[in-house]
Amino acid sequence: MLNLDIKPVGENFLELAWKRLDSLTKPPKSLGRLEEIAARLVAIYEDTMPEIKKKAVLVFASDHGVTEEGVSAYPKEVTAQMVFNFLRGGAGINVLARHAGADVVVVDVGVDYEFGQVEGLISKKVVRGARNIAKDPALGRDDAIKCIKTGIELVKQYYHMGYNLFATGEMGIGNTTPSSAVVSVLTGSPVEEVTGRGTGIDEETFKRKVEVIKKAIEINKPDPHDPIDVLSKVGGPEIGAIAGVVLGCAELKVPVVIDGFISTAGALIAYCINPAVKDYIFASHNSVEKGHKKALEFMGLTPLLDLNLRLGEGTGAALAMTIISAGLKIYREMATFEEAGVSKSDK
Amino acid sequence: MLNLDIKPVGENFLELAWKRLDSLTKPPKSLGRLEEIAARLVAIYEDTMPEIKKKAVLVFASDHGVTEEGVSAYPKEVTAQMVFNFLRGGAGINVLARHAGADVVVVDVGVDYEFGQVEGLISKKVVRGARNIAKDPALGRDDAIKCIKTGIELVKQYYHMGYNLFATGEMGIGNTTPSSAVVSVLTGSPVEEVTGRGTGIDEETFKRKVEVIKKAIEINKPDPHDPIDVLSKVGGPEIGAIAGVVLGCAELKVPVVIDGFISTAGALIAYCINPAVKDYIFASHNSVEKGHKKALEFMGLTPLLDLNLRLGEGTGAALAMTIISAGLKIYREMATFEEAGVSKSDK
Repeated sequence: MLNLDIKPVGENFLELAWKRLDSLTKPPKSLGRLEEIAARLVAIYEDTMPEIKKKAVLVFASDHGVTEEGVSAYPKEVTAQMVFNFLRGGAGINVLARHAGADVVVVDVGVDYEFGQVEGLISKKVVRGARNIAKDPALGRDDAIKCIKTGIELVKQYYHMGYNLFATGEMGIGNTTPSSAVVSVLTGSPVEEVTGRGTGIDEETFKRKVEVIKKAIEINKPDPHDPIDVLSKVGGPEIGAIAGVVLGCAELKVPVVIDGFISTAGALIAYCINPAVKDYIFASHNSVEKGHKKALEFMGLTPLLDLNLRLGEGTGAALAMTIISAGLKIYREMATFEEAGVSKSDK
Repeated sequence: MLNLDIKPVGENFLELAWKRLDSLTKPPKSLGRLEEIAARLVAIYEDTMPEIKKKAVLVFASDHGVTEEGVSAYPKEVTAQMVFNFLRGGAGINVLARHAGADVVVVDVGVDYEFGQVEGLISKKVVRGARNIAKDPALGRDDAIKCIKTGIELVKQYYHMGYNLFATGEMGIGNTTPSSAVVSVLTGSPVEEVTGRGTGIDEETFKRKVEVIKKAIEINKPDPHDPIDVLSKVGGPEIGAIAGVVLGCAELKVPVVIDGFISTAGALIAYCINPAVKDYIFASHNSVEKGHKKALEFMGLTPLLDLNLRLGEGTGAALAMTIISAGLKIYREMATFEEAGVSKSDK
């Protein structure tokens, strides 16, 4: 069904990378995580002098029937409105992607709005909004797989256009609710421990949100050992597409930078399908959403940034792309002790 | 002696900045620290649409007689060797400053080497190395003041050349030793709590380093209520110059990004001279050196990054400049709800 050939990164390239890093004019490991980034890029690309060529932030938009339950601070119309904002370049992700030198690719996987032909929008609509998970499964199993495949195929398409660093982003009013459900089921955590305040809901709405997620899990009975079942029962289209991006990147051996809570729920589905994807993922930031930390810990990922972000869209991932580029530049551009005629440590 | 006119930033500009930030197409405060950065830049520049023009990392190099005591992992010749590496563009700071679009300004304030005329090096040598603080005061009081004034004057000179974002950096084998001494005295912390392993010393050397710092404080008796006395007794030339940069930026109302432990020791001296400098400082990162955290807490500063860096040179500050630019771009470039036709929160 999903025929994937994904392998962990090789130790040999990691060793070669560290050999060079330790020869550069700085105390060994003194650039901390920047050096770890560089070593991992070498191992992912299987290239001792890799180059980041074109960068893309893939932003998947979708609606969620569960907004009927009053779980979000914003009306669901905002999903489509924000898609137009993305296309005009006025959203947070546009600004931060420009800052990172990355292109924003806006993809409709499940918005409950008929866009027609709109310049710049990639139409891959699988459904017109996920169903209300408090009553029904979010997606049919076939549609869930279609969402994952959409992500995989897009990565392949952009890879062949010369892109070799990807970030995931999303827009979907209500989508922290299915994300919490996915993370709760796949990590075996109580709903309360993985549910936050999304775009900013009050105490009453928060309590309702927790109840809605519990009900969604109770009614739909997702099988925690079947990540595709979890995606189809309590997930959503953009979460599936993001899982696909992660799987596709791992198969192509290119790095993928995941954004906040929703992206991480998508990455978690990919990880539960094939844990080897982990080596290809850079966790960008520690979101304010508390389920995010849980999901990252479950996969053994440590985020690069902690800036109290909770916007989504891929904003944290775009920002982390600048740190990842910096790590690679250190590796590529610094002089060695020998080249610079600098004495090494005598201790 | 130091005639400075430094005022805290005004509340009115902060309010104007938050008004705009809350009108942008995102849930209020959802870009976390990026928004705080933007608001503070507006207040510092006293401009509701500020622009970062030219950026400079001021890197001050100096030697330290205390290296005689065997407190560092590297021979002291490395200070001058690294100055040449900076001038050729091969060091970590060169790579990360290029990444941030900043110029590196290399300044000799106290290297124990006669450079003569070297292209690109700014010669402001006050002494040929600080004296060994385990035996003597680091600097005479007049020389300590001269170091501070050097920092202030350089900032003014570059400000008049169109630079309006500064970062501090340094190079000086042995300089975590005086930095620990300065932070211990000015924050009233035990030496053990503010001493780390610098560029990477072993247990034995570490114990010796702690003893040397204790002895330096005991012998020189710096007055904790007189930051210039602390600088002259147990500090060093680059620490003084960095204090000057912080004071100069605050007086000119331009932001200054401080790097790791040594830069923060310099900022701490500036803060103890005039606490209003705090509003103009961006703490770039949380260094591995444990005294760093102590000094930041004392000033009430929270670093932007935490990437296990411990190289110095200004590397963390250069990297943080990219985050600061991102914060300002959010403020300047994002569309408002009105412009984008996006519905606001209904909760």
